[in-house]
Amino acid sequence: MNTPEHMTAVVQRYVAALNAGDLDGIVALFADDATVEDPVGSEPRSGTAAIREFYANSLKLPLAVELTQEVRAVANEAAFAFTVSFEYQGRKTVVAPIDHFRFNGAGKVVSMRALFGEKNIHAGA
Amino acid sequence: MNTPEHMTAVVQRYVAALNAGDLDGIVALFADDATVEDPVGSEPRSGTAAIREFYANSLKLPLAVELTQEVRAVANEAAFAFTVSFEYQGRKTVVAPIDHFRFNGAGKVVSMRALFGEKNIHAGA
Repeated sequence: MNTPEHMTAVVQRYVAALNAGDLDGIVALFADDATVEDPVGSEPRSGTAAIREFYANSLKLPLAVELTQEVRAVANEAAFAFTVSFEYQGRKTVVAPIDHFRFNGAGKVVSMRALFGEKNIHAGA
Repeated sequence: MNTPEHMTAVVQRYVAALNAGDLDGIVALFADDATVEDPVGSEPRSGTAAIREFYANSLKLPLAVELTQEVRAVANEAAFAFTVSFEYQGRKTVVAPIDHFRFNGAGKVVSMRALFGEKNIHAGA
């Protein structure tokens, strides 16, 4: 069983690594056999190589990522609300997902799912 | 596929029914074969009778329930952050879960999971 403290720390490291554009730091949080479904409803990426490729793509633009509420963590799962802000062709965009992490016995993220729809994509200030 | 608008409306009806202590209104949102895991890590309740019993227990105290952020909805799933406030023996408590709903083809909730841990239970003001 993972502690809430461990899972919360992993979420915070994930956010910090996204902000820093630290691809190795992100990938290190995931189990070798992890899956990433981002957004929910898309084809899940499976395994380290596919996950690295996904985040390498995500980090092509600088991202400003911020937790907007307390992390929820219990059993082997965590959920967290956050915003991802970026600028593309002069337009600011803020996406507001809720992510769900499931952890394995080694404390690594074995499943990540990002839940957001069109209504959760906002024009930035 | 459920629309985001439908799923968001169901979440809003769920919150309104909890506030109103409307047990029939809550149960009507769930499929006959739905499961409710609240909190995540506990034994899921399965089927209408078990779900009714669970919410009847939950409603023994008056609850003040409030969405604290926009509902996330995509594909056949929704996630939402909210607070549940109640008073027990003169002490106010605020629980801050993130719930996850999965919808069936008929637009009913077929899986509900409430993710919160001890750190998400706060002494009320």
